[in-house]
Formats: sequence, C-alpha cells, structure tokens
Amino acid sequence: MTQKPKKTNKQAKCLNYIRDSGTASRIEISQELNLDKKTVSGIIDELLEANLIVHAGFKDSSAGRRQELLKINGSHSNFIGVDLGATHINGIITDLSGEILDRIYFELRPGLSLDLILEQLTTMTQRLMSSDKVTAKVSAIGVDVPGFINPESGVSLMAENIPSWKETNLRLLFESTFDKPVFFEDCSRALGIAEHLLGSGKYSENFFVLDVGYGIGMAIFINGELFSGCCFKSGEIGHTVIDPAGPLCSCGKRGCLETLASGQGIAAQAATAIKEGKSKILEELTHNKAHEVTAQDVALAASLKDEYSVSLLQISGYYIGVALSNALNILNPSCVILGGGLMGAGKILLDSIEKSIKNYTMMGIIDDVEIKTSTLGIDGSALGCALLSMEHVFSL
Amino acid sequence: MTQKPKKTNKQAKCLNYIRDSGTASRIEISQELNLDKKTVSGIIDELLEANLIVHAGFKDSSAGRRQELLKINGSHSNFIGVDLGATHINGIITDLSGEILDRIYFELRPGLSLDLILEQLTTMTQRLMSSDKVTAKVSAIGVDVPGFINPESGVSLMAENIPSWKETNLRLLFESTFDKPVFFEDCSRALGIAEHLLGSGKYSENFFVLDVGYGIGMAIFINGELFSGCCFKSGEIGHTVIDPAGPLCSCGKRGCLETLASGQGIAAQAATAIKEGKSKILEELTHNKAHEVTAQDVALAASLKDEYSVSLLQISGYYIGVALSNALNILNPSCVILGGGLMGAGKILLDSIEKSIKNYTMMGIIDDVEIKTSTLGIDGSALGCALLSMEHVFSL
Repeated sequence: MTQKPKKTNKQAKCLNYIRDSGTASRIEISQELNLDKKTVSGIIDELLEANLIVHAGFKDSSAGRRQELLKINGSHSNFIGVDLGATHINGIITDLSGEILDRIYFELRPGLSLDLILEQLTTMTQRLMSSDKVTAKVSAIGVDVPGFINPESGVSLMAENIPSWKETNLRLLFESTFDKPVFFEDCSRALGIAEHLLGSGKYSENFFVLDVGYGIGMAIFINGELFSGCCFKSGEIGHTVIDPAGPLCSCGKRGCLETLASGQGIAAQAATAIKEGKSKILEELTHNKAHEVTAQDVALAASLKDEYSVSLLQISGYYIGVALSNALNILNPSCVILGGGLMGAGKILLDSIEKSIKNYTMMGIIDDVEIKTSTLGIDGSALGCALLSMEHVFSL
Repeated sequence: MTQKPKKTNKQAKCLNYIRDSGTASRIEISQELNLDKKTVSGIIDELLEANLIVHAGFKDSSAGRRQELLKINGSHSNFIGVDLGATHINGIITDLSGEILDRIYFELRPGLSLDLILEQLTTMTQRLMSSDKVTAKVSAIGVDVPGFINPESGVSLMAENIPSWKETNLRLLFESTFDKPVFFEDCSRALGIAEHLLGSGKYSENFFVLDVGYGIGMAIFINGELFSGCCFKSGEIGHTVIDPAGPLCSCGKRGCLETLASGQGIAAQAATAIKEGKSKILEELTHNKAHEVTAQDVALAASLKDEYSVSLLQISGYYIGVALSNALNILNPSCVILGGGLMGAGKILLDSIEKSIKNYTMMGIIDDVEIKTSTLGIDGSALGCALLSMEHVFSL
C-alpha cells in the first residue's frame, strides 16, 4: 500500500537538508553534506524535475554571483494528521513543507462508545480530505491514539484513558475507508516526531518530549532516532510511581504521576476541593458542579489568583519535575521539551516543574540538559501524524 | 596508543560469530551470516593465520563429511580488568576467550585517601601483569570506577560513594605507568558489557542490567548498543526518587533508591536498628558495633531467620522493584538482568524485587519483559573491563 518514490540515499540527504534549513543553495548543500558540486547539481535538477523542491529567490552574497535558493515544494502533495486524545480529536491537513492548511477540532465527551469514537475519526478524516483549503492531492494519512499501538500492524491494544477502548485494528478501518497509505503512532510519540522535525528538538540527538495533557506520556529520542521500546510501549512516564502511598490510579497502582499531576489528576483533586469548599472561584467557574471541573478551569482560576488552584498547579509541577528528574537521571539526555495541552496552564506550572527538576536531577546530569518548551501548541501531535505520513517521501 | 589490528567488516563479523557461538563450523558461519562459502573460507584462513582462532575438533554430522569446528584462540593475548567499587578493588586477568586466569580481590576500608586508592589500583594492575597464570602477552587494560567517567578522555569526574574522590585523569595515570592501551568505563556499564557479551544479555537487543551493590547503577542497551547518555552519565537509577519524604541521600536529595535499598542504605538502617535493640542476631554478628554493620551481615542474619533482617531485605526489594518498574514503564525493554554484589543476599531479596516489579510495571509492559539474574558473580564488572579492553580486537 505504501507509495515509495524511488530515491537514492544522496537524494534523501539533500531533500532532508533543504527541509531542515527552510531554504538552501546548491553551494551550501554541497559544503554541508560534503558532496561535490556536480553531484549536488544533478540531484537538485532531479528533485526539481520531480516537483519535490522549487526555487525560492536568491541569497544575498557579498562576493561572486548570487546564489539561487531552493525550498520544499509544499504544493507537491498534502497530508492528513489526526490526533485522538482522551478528551478531543484534532485533525489537520498540511502541505509537504508541514504548513497547516486547515484544521478541525472537537472535544470528546466522557463515556462515548468505541464505535462512535471510531466513526468520528473517519468522519473527521473525510471532512479534511474534502476541505477547500487543500492545495494538492492528499497522498497519505497519519493517525495517533493515546495508548499502546503497533505502528506496523496498526492494531491499537488499549487506551487507558478511554474506558470504552478495546483492541482495534485501525489499519483495517482506515484502509478500507480511504484508498491511501495510513501510518500510526502513539500520541506522545507523534508530538515527539513534530518536535524532532520542525520544533524544539530539531538539533538534538538525545532528548525527551514530555506530553502533559489529560494523561502524561513521553517520546524518547536516542542518537537522533525515536525509541519505542522492544514492543512500541516506551514512554509511560505517567505510570511511574512517585509516591507509593499516593492516590489510586486507573491502572490499579497507587501514586502514579498521572494521579498526581495530569489533566485528569488535577481535575479529580479540584473536584474534591470544590466539594470541600476550598475554592470559591472554582465553585463559581463550574457553577458548583464539582464533577465537571477540568484542569483548564484550575489554570484559569490560578490566573485569577485563586490560592487553592495556584497551589495545586505548583504541587503538580513539583511531581512532574520529580518524575522527569528520575528519567533524566536514568537517560542523561541533552534536552527536554515540555509540551502537551496542560503546558498551556502557563508560568506557575512551568516554574514549578523547572524548580523541581533542578532540585531532583543529579549534579552533573542537570548541567548537561537544556529545558525547552514546545512551540507547536495544541496541533503538535496532529502535525506529528502528518509528518509521519510524509516520511516515505523524505526517507529512502 | 590503541593497537588496532587491520580487519575487514566481514572478518569482524565472523570473529564475533565464533565468540558468540563458542564453537562454529565454516558452513554454520556461512549460513548464519549469509556469506558465500568461499568468502568465509578465505576469512577463516586469515583468522587462523593471525592466530585469533584455532581448531576445536569436529561436529557430529548425520550426513556428509564431518564439519571442523573453530573457536577463539584464548592464548592469542591476555587482558586485565580492574573494577573499583566503593568498598573493594577486584582485578582479573583473562585470555582472549574471556576465561579468567587469575584474580586479586581486596576490600577497601572506608575513608581512604584518593592517592592511596589510586596507588592500590596501579599496584593491583602490576601484580596481575606479573601473575604466573598469564598465558600470553597482556595487550590491553580495562578499568572501571563507581561514578561519572568519560571513556574517551579517561577523566573521572566524581565517585559519590568514595568521599575522597575528586576529578582525576586516570588515562594519564595508567598510560604513564603501563605501556599499554587502557580503556575506561563506569562500573555498572562494565557489568553490562560482560552480561551483553558473555552473560544473560547475550541474545537481547533492548535490556537493562541493574547493578545492586554498595550503590545502585544500571547499564542500558538500546538496539544492541550500550547507551551512555549524551555525556556518559546514564543509568543513575540509584538516584531516582521513590519516596520524596524518605531519608537524606549523600547526593543531597531525599528518598533516592540508594538510601532505601542499596548496600549502604541497608547498612545505615541496620545500624539504627541495632542501636534501638531491634535485632539480637545483628547485635551478636557485629559484636554490638552498630556502625560496622554491613548489608552482608543483614543477608546472613536474614538467612538465620532474623525477623528484622528479613523484613529489611523485603522492603529493600520492594523499593528496588518500584524503581525498576519506573524504568521499565519508560523504556519497555525485553529483558532485565539483576546483578551486583547485593544480589548475593539471595532469595528473600530476589523474590521481593520480582513481586514488586509485577505490582508496579504496567500491564502490557510487564508481559514483554523477562527478568533474569546475573550468572557472572562478583567478577562481573572486572570481566566487563577486560572485555572492553579486547573490543578493539573484535570490532573493526
């Protein structure tokens, strides 16, 4: 089913160099990739011929003749990325340069049946394919889910934060509905792919991307490659235990990071606080419906200086920092990127995470690591899916 | 300084295959490595000529002619491995097959000066070199230390469990004392190398080796390669925090695994127990000198059914299992090997670790992982050093 264009190793290298650089001249490519000028010129002509790149004006050059610049031809093809979260579906359509052309987002109410969720996934994909913002033929689709998925078979084994989820062959569903190649990934690893190719992880070899949302996951890059574990289940930092005496988690253990600090963990704690009359502002924001409170409400209340909410975000940040420090002490990466919906809660949470990382990461290891925040916003995972689906264009 | 014999990629492949298999015939090598028979025969002749392999009898074959077997020529050269722990120095000399020819072990009393420790390291190396068990020229030396070391520069930055340690250029020391190539590694990663090449990790690609001794470290293998992090500091699972309200660690944090479950953590807890009159047997074993109690005393007392010691080992195993589960949830390996001196404490500790891993590792991830114990005993890290020092013979 995969449409793999014939490409040589050197062609792939040049194409990737142009994508990484945004724009590049033949001379730059030749120098940076250590290829002779004639070879590069031949490859560039072939890539132009294949419509994969286009001219992008000229580079100002102090000496000699002007250097013609090249860039990825966005209009070569379009790609769809669909990100399924525990509480949302977010779909985008991009061009080959990764530019987002259109998006559809909707929240998922809790307790939906698996069939209804799957129908929403395919309906959204269909709507994106017929968007009037499309600039070229849609050549592939990428889909992520919040749980264990085998990207090869396309079978999703479980999604802990979607109670109705059970083993599902997503490849079968998507390939029987759409006559396109479809690629699959876990939602945190999809975010990682986007950070690696177009975001804060562009120039790092060994790094994590923490995905803090309703759940908490992590994408791990080792020597420049996404590491998925032996069986595509790596990155479950949300189920590392930070406090063995802590609250009960949906996975059956006590004191998992997700119970203490994720979107669902924060909401559960806030619900109790509302019932106990600990926050007038949260009570007001939710019309006293404690069970409807979300982490977004807590973030809003904190920005309104609600003491309880500020303190809850600070404690959450503390626990996230402890868990991240544990991972840093084990893997000694050069960079950590903090991303995911909950990072939108702002400076209170971020400051608390950073403080905690500094307190809990070993001397020496803390000096090696740069802490960055994601710049991709809520489209990060969906963008990762679209990028995943175009990887066959960029790789050999 | 490194003496790199000229070898082709295919030669290295054949040599490694013979080492991995113990013995192998030309036909087996040809089939397993997918190389044509003539190429393999040429390579084998060259390796025989270079004295790196020797004949090893014949394989019983039901049909056709008998297949001549080949094995590594142990007597080609000898190698020294020196393992520095917080409480011991263990040195061995091996042949090229990894067989241990001689060993010297001594305990380090606490509080020795750095100069004295370094002198002991070089003296032991000298004694091993002049051992009458030597079967060939010693061609390289491997040394490990319990702390951050850059294997390229040979500079050891710190060794937290040796208070007198400070930044030391071990390469300078060893190369000025011995006219041999010297290779360096962290002690837990050295154990990992031994497990990977000759022990329980021989057929795994993604696995950990946990090194439970006076401290607790870990070697991580990703896609068949040792992963040292961005700056050679990976594997500090001993300083992951399991209980933020726990006892103070030498690193300045509270509730690190090492304070709760390592050799030093167990000894510290046992010392308090003796003072509080909680264990008559420990009191007797140590002649009531609480400050002299060791984890070995606790293991002995537990084997004598001392209730306090049994419970202490069980609790330690519980915490080791929690920390390991956190690492399993993050990395999803296919195998974990439990090694290091404290694993000699026996079944009580082992059972408790296994029970805890089963309780704290995510469903799905626990099904992927095989839990093994090290079979290399207390020579594991020293053997890893010797193997490290012979890697230039086996690699390209």
